[in-house]
Amino acid sequence: EILAAIGSYFGADAPLAGRKALVTSGPTHEPIDPVRYIANRSSGRQGHAIAAALARLGAATTLVTGPTQQPDPPGVTVRHVESARDMLAACQAALPVDAAVCAAAVADWRVASAADQKMKREGHDGLKLEFTQNPDILATLSEVGNLRPRLVVGFAAETENVIDHARAKRARKGCDWIVANDVSPATGTFGGAENTVHLIVDGASEPETWPRMSKADVGERLARRIADHLIQPAAEASSA
Amino acid sequence: EILAAIGSYFGADAPLAGRKALVTSGPTHEPIDPVRYIANRSSGRQGHAIAAALARLGAATTLVTGPTQQPDPPGVTVRHVESARDMLAACQAALPVDAAVCAAAVADWRVASAADQKMKREGHDGLKLEFTQNPDILATLSEVGNLRPRLVVGFAAETENVIDHARAKRARKGCDWIVANDVSPATGTFGGAENTVHLIVDGASEPETWPRMSKADVGERLARRIADHLIQPAAEASSA
Repeated sequence: EILAAIGSYFGADAPLAGRKALVTSGPTHEPIDPVRYIANRSSGRQGHAIAAALARLGAATTLVTGPTQQPDPPGVTVRHVESARDMLAACQAALPVDAAVCAAAVADWRVASAADQKMKREGHDGLKLEFTQNPDILATLSEVGNLRPRLVVGFAAETENVIDHARAKRARKGCDWIVANDVSPATGTFGGAENTVHLIVDGASEPETWPRMSKADVGERLARRIADHLIQPAAEASSA
Repeated sequence: EILAAIGSYFGADAPLAGRKALVTSGPTHEPIDPVRYIANRSSGRQGHAIAAALARLGAATTLVTGPTQQPDPPGVTVRHVESARDMLAACQAALPVDAAVCAAAVADWRVASAADQKMKREGHDGLKLEFTQNPDILATLSEVGNLRPRLVVGFAAETENVIDHARAKRARKGCDWIVANDVSPATGTFGGAENTVHLIVDGASEPETWPRMSKADVGERLARRIADHLIQPAAEASSA
């Protein structure tokens, strides 16, 4: 019975059979010089788990990931990138898709002019670096246009006022849903196996707070929510 | 015969039995805010291999390592740290030692005032960060004093003028030996399994260029050189 249920997901009756999904995961690395870089704390566990779950539900899934220690999930097309600009290009190359989930911790800034050679410690006592904004992958994918995915889901990693910041981020980026999580060091979410998230859905009055669960289970639950949304009749879905 | 040879290293006739060694390895992570940090490209492979080799030769070895994916080497006391300041404190706590090998890629700079909360993308279009110099672990350990190790070995990861930069670094830091390597991206040394190094010994006229070999073999060869040096009569050793 269990085997039959698993098997069915790979058949035509899997809920996301015939659909395409795009997931971003991991950090980006932005070079300062050949040996130094700026990174975000992100293990890639959550994004990889989401991609794996979408693939299990039958979606043709592309995972665009920064440098992580996570193995490539089975049944997923994986594109490995380093910088935010590379990640955006790989995402755009994966369009069109039905759903995009931006779980990567993309560096907001990069050094305005990275050095070609290693900077020497000497003569740089009060080093100053100037930064320029990276492209905003979530906002770019959310822009209205022919290639906008029907459902765009963002993540908001916050350390204070988690819900308020996440609501504001959803509106600002133009995405449909936001998964908000508290990544304060005390929560152990970064690099850990568990996550406590709040799902904020466009139009819904209150965020859904999910119980603390493994990142694999968050991925599974989110993938099922995405499947439920995509298999609604189009008229109903377009209002969400 | 082989087993006997291996066994003997753990006995009193191992060349470094009764000696103490300190090795640093890996990158340091310097926080910008709770979710962002500056890092150096360093897998920790070379430093961990050196610590493992010194322990195999009988030295009571402490390894102070930044965040890496390397397993703790067997028979080595391992201290895990994140920042350069933590690394220095852990090194000082391990003194006195007979030999110190500084293989870590320590961040030369840290952000002058790291933020307590995640910095928001908005309002930081042309972000500027001011940096302040980190403590110099190699120079600090090389300072003359009661606790100076008899042999201090530094590493110089360079991307141009490798030998010249490394010679200058040895003189500037006050260490005894420098292991110089070319870490230009084209060499594949960062993160790779092999290394091409040049050993620069105080007083020797020419650097020794070792053939390209695995990082494990570099560790083995360096540990044997250190053993040969430490078991010289003191009068001879003091001139090197």
